[in-house]
Amino acid sequence: MAEIRHALTARRAEDFAAWYQEVIAAADMAEESGVRGCMVIKPWGFGIWERMQRLLDDRIKATGHENVYFPLFIPLANFEREAEHVEGFAKEMAVVTHHRLIAGKDGGLVPDPEAKLEEPLVVRPTSETIFGDAMARWIRSWRDLPLKLNQWANVVRWEMRTRMFLRTSEFLWQEGHTAHADAAEAKEHTLRMLEVYRAFAEEDLSLPVIAGEKPENERFPGAVETWSIEAMMQDGKALQAGTSHYLGENFSRSSGIQFQDKEGGQTYCHTTSWGVSTRMVGAVIMTHGDDDGLRVPPQIAPWQVVILPMLRDKPEDEALLAYCEELRGMLVGRSAFGEKLRVLLDTKPGKAAAKRWDWVRKGAPVIVEVGGRDMEQGVVSLLRRDGLWDASTGKPAFQNPSREGLGEALPAMLDEIHSGLLAQAQKRREANIIRDVTEMAAVEAHFAEDQRYPGWLEVQWSKPTGAALDAVVERLKALKLTVRNVPVDAAPADGACIFTGEPAVERVLLARAY
Amino acid sequence: MAEIRHALTARRAEDFAAWYQEVIAAADMAEESGVRGCMVIKPWGFGIWERMQRLLDDRIKATGHENVYFPLFIPLANFEREAEHVEGFAKEMAVVTHHRLIAGKDGGLVPDPEAKLEEPLVVRPTSETIFGDAMARWIRSWRDLPLKLNQWANVVRWEMRTRMFLRTSEFLWQEGHTAHADAAEAKEHTLRMLEVYRAFAEEDLSLPVIAGEKPENERFPGAVETWSIEAMMQDGKALQAGTSHYLGENFSRSSGIQFQDKEGGQTYCHTTSWGVSTRMVGAVIMTHGDDDGLRVPPQIAPWQVVILPMLRDKPEDEALLAYCEELRGMLVGRSAFGEKLRVLLDTKPGKAAAKRWDWVRKGAPVIVEVGGRDMEQGVVSLLRRDGLWDASTGKPAFQNPSREGLGEALPAMLDEIHSGLLAQAQKRREANIIRDVTEMAAVEAHFAEDQRYPGWLEVQWSKPTGAALDAVVERLKALKLTVRNVPVDAAPADGACIFTGEPAVERVLLARAY
Repeated sequence: MAEIRHALTARRAEDFAAWYQEVIAAADMAEESGVRGCMVIKPWGFGIWERMQRLLDDRIKATGHENVYFPLFIPLANFEREAEHVEGFAKEMAVVTHHRLIAGKDGGLVPDPEAKLEEPLVVRPTSETIFGDAMARWIRSWRDLPLKLNQWANVVRWEMRTRMFLRTSEFLWQEGHTAHADAAEAKEHTLRMLEVYRAFAEEDLSLPVIAGEKPENERFPGAVETWSIEAMMQDGKALQAGTSHYLGENFSRSSGIQFQDKEGGQTYCHTTSWGVSTRMVGAVIMTHGDDDGLRVPPQIAPWQVVILPMLRDKPEDEALLAYCEELRGMLVGRSAFGEKLRVLLDTKPGKAAAKRWDWVRKGAPVIVEVGGRDMEQGVVSLLRRDGLWDASTGKPAFQNPSREGLGEALPAMLDEIHSGLLAQAQKRREANIIRDVTEMAAVEAHFAEDQRYPGWLEVQWSKPTGAALDAVVERLKALKLTVRNVPVDAAPADGACIFTGEPAVERVLLARAY
Repeated sequence: MAEIRHALTARRAEDFAAWYQEVIAAADMAEESGVRGCMVIKPWGFGIWERMQRLLDDRIKATGHENVYFPLFIPLANFEREAEHVEGFAKEMAVVTHHRLIAGKDGGLVPDPEAKLEEPLVVRPTSETIFGDAMARWIRSWRDLPLKLNQWANVVRWEMRTRMFLRTSEFLWQEGHTAHADAAEAKEHTLRMLEVYRAFAEEDLSLPVIAGEKPENERFPGAVETWSIEAMMQDGKALQAGTSHYLGENFSRSSGIQFQDKEGGQTYCHTTSWGVSTRMVGAVIMTHGDDDGLRVPPQIAPWQVVILPMLRDKPEDEALLAYCEELRGMLVGRSAFGEKLRVLLDTKPGKAAAKRWDWVRKGAPVIVEVGGRDMEQGVVSLLRRDGLWDASTGKPAFQNPSREGLGEALPAMLDEIHSGLLAQAQKRREANIIRDVTEMAAVEAHFAEDQRYPGWLEVQWSKPTGAALDAVVERLKALKLTVRNVPVDAAPADGACIFTGEPAVERVLLARAY
């Protein structure tokens, strides 16, 4: 095995946090904005989010939802209603108090004291309550049900410690809100959206996830059931990649969402809500990135194939460009995953080799280089981002298909890259879930040292509630662990609760988490 | 001619403003939100905006732009830089001053005095300056040019008088910002984007527009040239539907956007910006709506075809539904305008006739009703929204194509509806532009009474500047008129300036405007 000179400085195995920041910078995905806790999402990062949006939106529409848009600003009254005991209420949110800037005494601009709002407005941290108000207005009778709405929007939570894509003061997300006539239908819908998220993660982002129900202490405030999909990052930590909540009548009662049922009575709706955010981009980086940068799953790659002509600032360039343009035209006529191939002919100035490594760091699934000799021979030099190195030489593992063969090979190749990324992540996850731990001492030993790849543990428990659950949460907290969820696919319990020794009722996943 | 009982109460010809509000309500597009000046965009209204977004975004990408996302909040310093003389500065903008809510003395919530921001933040009224900061960071050399960026986002301007879609405190838009190496390229790009807007309006929204340059007094602050597309609404007023600005070096100098040119020198970029907003939805309503509600151009209709089974709450319904589902399956296999047909099978509870009129008011291009008898005969009852009434009977003008014939006919029918709407609007506009006015007295007479369909005037002028232009603007203001633009397609000037009597240099459009 020859030594490989990777394209990044940081190594995943050595300093995962530094590696994460370097990938974002090296792939030119985002940067700090100068505005506290807010980032600028640059073209490559935003292109990935746009692809996610399009694919998830298609799935959300295919399950009968319609998109809407509610105001950015929410009146204080909505939060007062939510804050059952206003006394203890304190929330980190951006508050708008004035509607005009004027010149101040020191020569700068200041909010105009004459333009103070009578009631401050809050920049939405979520649109839960404002959807609730609308549902209460829009729903009259059983004929209006189910009401299935979704919104794509920016939201703001004044986070103290931020990290690009994972936790930012402003982020982008979708929030779905539905109202149903009864509990059974609402619960079924909660699980349907969980399954939409699972399929989206696995089929579109090549991101294996474990779907399951959150324990009581991890429920969304006001939810009767909270379900999540959990993904394992390459440092062994868990990342909650999406949640789906069954809210019972809790939310319809506080917002007054009632309908006239078929018998003429007034009945409260059962509601659900569910969301996925730009956090998902962080999950993709931490799942698929390697020591050469990002590897973008082909379904969400803004460009699936990048053609790099080896231009030499010579008259021959013209013929080479024409050849590459013809190649591009041929490739965009092909389809993968039911859509036209997304092919970029990159003619920006710059040295071809430097540009190659830029695209490696960005993680374009397939890089196709074409030089004068390739053109003469009717072939291309193809580099697969998921098989970048020839381990025996330590050099890039170029393949040389014929130009015609390339068009035929690409759809299957992209599919293979998707499956390969998914399988690799799945294998890594399974290798890092320990399923036979029955003693708390073993858990403590496992997490005693702050090891780099702690992995997850699957344990059996008696599903404690109330104070008993609090005690479990405290014990886990000492190990920086949380209960992630009760996997829907887990085997039935057949032993004792690892915390109490009582008969176990189900299996839960324990992990450190983002 | 029989009397027609229209589906709305208000009449365009009698009270255009009331009619506009009624269309929005009757088509269930949007409603007031309760938050000052902000609206809730409901599924049908948002579905139309989503279609606009998708089609315009495709055009923006096809001209080589990439999408990005900048923060919602902008530091005060950016506005101080822009406000050349801070003393005179006063802008209506939402100002964030606190980052936490707590319980106040009177039992409600208040901004926490302990959580006051050191520097207030402004909710973006436009992202001009923050794009500028980024361009200054991102552009190093001529190799980085042109830089062509676009953003889809919400922006806030604290408007005192609001009107749904036309002027709201928060609205949705796209803003494009590009940087170029020289004036020629930047100017060319300004016009290219103007042409993108023209094609988008005419080909996608069936909305005829007149593209031209704005006079000096109507330029965007800091622009060297401002171009617009202007559309005539059915009340004869003009609506500026999109603008494209050539900013010269003004903006690059204030933001420090420089590049190293091929000779190694530091040079300021020439920049452009251009935008289109949810206002466009208002333009579509006021151009294509009629006394039965909205008529959505087929390219932007969320559903182009709505199938309404005439259900009767009887056992036969099942066969009818199966028949309609089969019909839907057959139709979605067809394409129009290069995309799959968007077909809804509306099975919501409710009387079929009432549902028909709902869809008429919403303006679905084609409504297909299927009753038991239709099914037996293998036909459908088709209603075209652009030919709703049989004038001789005063009844809906149903056609009865065979089920198979329908699939074949639809693509051409939708194309015909698009062309028809465009031609109708074009004809109405041309009939309402008076082109031979050479005397100010005639202009004054024309606009003397506050007539309902004032139309536009094309006049010749000497292109006054400075104080002379101010005087013209004042004279026009007395008639509530503004100069819309200098149409790119106008005939050359050949007479005297209507304002000064001097030799004219170009023709300009005068109109009342939204």
